[in-house]
Amino acid sequence: METRRAESFSDGVFAVAITVLVFNLLPIARHGIKFDELVRDAWPQYAGYVVSFLTIGIMWLNHHTLMAQLAKVDRITLVINTFLLMGVVAVPFPTALVADNLAHGTKVESARLAAVVYGLLLIAISIAYSGLWMYVAAKQDTLGARKIRTPLEATIRFSAGLLGYVAGTLVAAFGSPYVAMVIFAAIAVYYLFDHLPDPTGKDGGLPAAGVPGSTSDYDGGPPAG
Amino acid sequence: METRRAESFSDGVFAVAITVLVFNLLPIARHGIKFDELVRDAWPQYAGYVVSFLTIGIMWLNHHTLMAQLAKVDRITLVINTFLLMGVVAVPFPTALVADNLAHGTKVESARLAAVVYGLLLIAISIAYSGLWMYVAAKQDTLGARKIRTPLEATIRFSAGLLGYVAGTLVAAFGSPYVAMVIFAAIAVYYLFDHLPDPTGKDGGLPAAGVPGSTSDYDGGPPAG
Amino acid sequence: METRRAESFSDGVFAVAITVLVFNLLPIARHGIKFDELVRDAWPQYAGYVVSFLTIGIMWLNHHTLMAQLAKVDRITLVINTFLLMGVVAVPFPTALVADNLAHGTKVESARLAAVVYGLLLIAISIAYSGLWMYVAAKQDTLGARKIRTPLEATIRFSAGLLGYVAGTLVAAFGSPYVAMVIFAAIAVYYLFDHLPDPTGKDGGLPAAGVPGSTSDYDGGPPAG
Amino acid sequence: METRRAESFSDGVFAVAITVLVFNLLPIARHGIKFDELVRDAWPQYAGYVVSFLTIGIMWLNHHTLMAQLAKVDRITLVINTFLLMGVVAVPFPTALVADNLAHGTKVESARLAAVVYGLLLIAISIAYSGLWMYVAAKQDTLGARKIRTPLEATIRFSAGLLGYVAGTLVAAFGSPYVAMVIFAAIAVYYLFDHLPDPTGKDGGLPAAGVPGSTSDYDGGPPAG
Repeated sequence: METRRAESFSDGVFAVAITVLVFNLLPIARHGIKFDELVRDAWPQYAGYVVSFLTIGIMWLNHHTLMAQLAKVDRITLVINTFLLMGVVAVPFPTALVADNLAHGTKVESARLAAVVYGLLLIAISIAYSGLWMYVAAKQDTLGARKIRTPLEATIRFSAGLLGYVAGTLVAAFGSPYVAMVIFAAIAVYYLFDHLPDPTGKDGGLPAAGVPGSTSDYDGGPPAG
Repeated sequence: METRRAESFSDGVFAVAITVLVFNLLPIARHGIKFDELVRDAWPQYAGYVVSFLTIGIMWLNHHTLMAQLAKVDRITLVINTFLLMGVVAVPFPTALVADNLAHGTKVESARLAAVVYGLLLIAISIAYSGLWMYVAAKQDTLGARKIRTPLEATIRFSAGLLGYVAGTLVAAFGSPYVAMVIFAAIAVYYLFDHLPDPTGKDGGLPAAGVPGSTSDYDGGPPAG
Repeated sequence: METRRAESFSDGVFAVAITVLVFNLLPIARHGIKFDELVRDAWPQYAGYVVSFLTIGIMWLNHHTLMAQLAKVDRITLVINTFLLMGVVAVPFPTALVADNLAHGTKVESARLAAVVYGLLLIAISIAYSGLWMYVAAKQDTLGARKIRTPLEATIRFSAGLLGYVAGTLVAAFGSPYVAMVIFAAIAVYYLFDHLPDPTGKDGGLPAAGVPGSTSDYDGGPPAG
Repeated sequence: METRRAESFSDGVFAVAITVLVFNLLPIARHGIKFDELVRDAWPQYAGYVVSFLTIGIMWLNHHTLMAQLAKVDRITLVINTFLLMGVVAVPFPTALVADNLAHGTKVESARLAAVVYGLLLIAISIAYSGLWMYVAAKQDTLGARKIRTPLEATIRFSAGLLGYVAGTLVAAFGSPYVAMVIFAAIAVYYLFDHLPDPTGKDGGLPAAGVPGSTSDYDGGPPAG
């Protein structure tokens, strides 16, 4: 299958999944809304919206970066991709769990449970992403149009992302679910800025002006999803 | 009409339909969630999510495989495609039915009814898919850019998929609705791995590296949807 | 603006709008569902789903047919298109109104009101479509890559579609809302099959095999939306 | 990254976000609907739908206009774009707030609060848009395929749009929330027609017939989002 159409379908799924997050905000809207209901009571909804939006946004960026290396995708790539998307589409669910259970007045067991489920889903997505990454790296001679650079370094950096999610989940399980959510947010923000292109063009991040497609926009970095 | 835009619209519909499945998970999220509510009570929701996600994912794969054979689509192709999409978009509905009626404490009549509706929709989609397949095979001289190979064998293999859905629906109606759902899941998993490309390239599944579009990615297999 | 991106955005909106229709089915799914609830009580939901799905599907087909004539779109085209999409996106709302008010046990005033709103929205969409059609026909020298044939005949045939919606709405207001819905369904089915391509290729509907884009797929017919 | 795929993902997000607005209409549909419920009680829902639909529609137009200037997008562009989309996707939330709190019988404090939140989100989106605009203008030598004209004038005109949103929000906070919504609607309508292409082609708005892509469709105007 051409990469283009697999990308197109995946893009659509990412776009819908990221937009579904707003459905966690809609129930806040009530007749006769008061300031306290809108701000003090609903902050976990907003926090969950922002963290999950950034997380899905970065997953999309990394997904694109990976797919852009490929000239073709085979059936196994598509199967792994389906499982990856299954995780991405599910993100609004633990986001709702967290939003409903992190507000003041919730028992800490429920908050903990919600944050653990959130972390477990991110770990599952990371593992699917990891599988996709390793499969594609192994098959790059048949699938890839471009040489994937430094798979070893990239795999190490990827593991760091996965470890961050595992650490956050452990903190949710045995420490504070609030700290855990801060960790998940920090990972999202970190990966948002991690791959800023080198102005010298050393990483191939920035092409010459007016020459679309002339160089790879892949900088050898790991998937973060 | 160019195949490209019919594909693009269909891709969008598939992407939204598959994402709508998460709306069956959102009601699980409640203030003060408990472990039992999240795991023991909600497992049919998760099971329904996974089975329907895989099923729609495979339908998309097969839809792409079929459309990729065509250079143009005519009005009848679009009409059949509209009915096919009408079925695909409806999948979240019986998924919700099944999820609400397979948990412990539900009367078996309701579980049975839900699983039968689920099976009937899959059968209807299969028939629409079958119609699309047979129409396109018959019209391949005018519609197709590539020769569709072995339509007979493919039609036989397709009938196997349809028969599987019929068998599952009968099991739901007269046997156990739980076994029926396992059958539907098994069909999804089977078709997920069925068409792994032959490494020898005999089936044309794997093109030469760096030569996008040089060979067909169609392996003569039947639609499974 | 290039037609391609306006099409891409419009396709996305059509795809999401058509998928939103399933949200009218989801509330049917209840714990402990009974056969009567699923069939006798819910038939207006299914009927509304099918009629609106076909109607939006045809609107998409006609939208594509129109846009395919254009090499470029200007600001006014985009403004009219925005109003057209505003109507298409709203279709699930009167569909829900009709589904909630056509079941047995509803007062005829409510059923009438629902069917009138349904008809008024279809009329509004038709008028937006008509405006788009007339604007594009008038500006075809600057916008169009292909000569739009027989605008007069097409405009007449279009008016027939609009008249059908007006007639249905009048029947809903002063006669039977059930008959009105049958009229709306009949219009959808009629336009679904109306433009079957002439096998002789006289209408340019069917291109030579393997020569994508070699001839127009536009047959001079009117928009039905 | 190629602009094409960033556009494609953004298009998808815009398309879904604009369609989510219909979910604010669906609760109006009730069994046994009466004329007063449908018209007198629900007008804020319709008004909110129209204003937000036009606003998102224009944001999409301006987003396209901006992206069409670029041959490539870098990481910072994508980060700013992610925050912009985060705002756009959230629009249905304050739309629901406004719709629930502007009907007769609501306390003015709630209506005020709703309109202020609506205005603040539009301001936030404007600032994100402004940031994207200024970054792209500053980096146009490396990112842009076409010379972006008159960034100074455009920046001034853009500021006018932002000032309009600020003014509306202040009116919502200290004056009438109803007047504020009229201001937001007026801004949407103004920007809808503001950039009509100059028939003389002076602004490059209208290309020669049949020469797609031969001239820029960008007229030097500011983003309005």
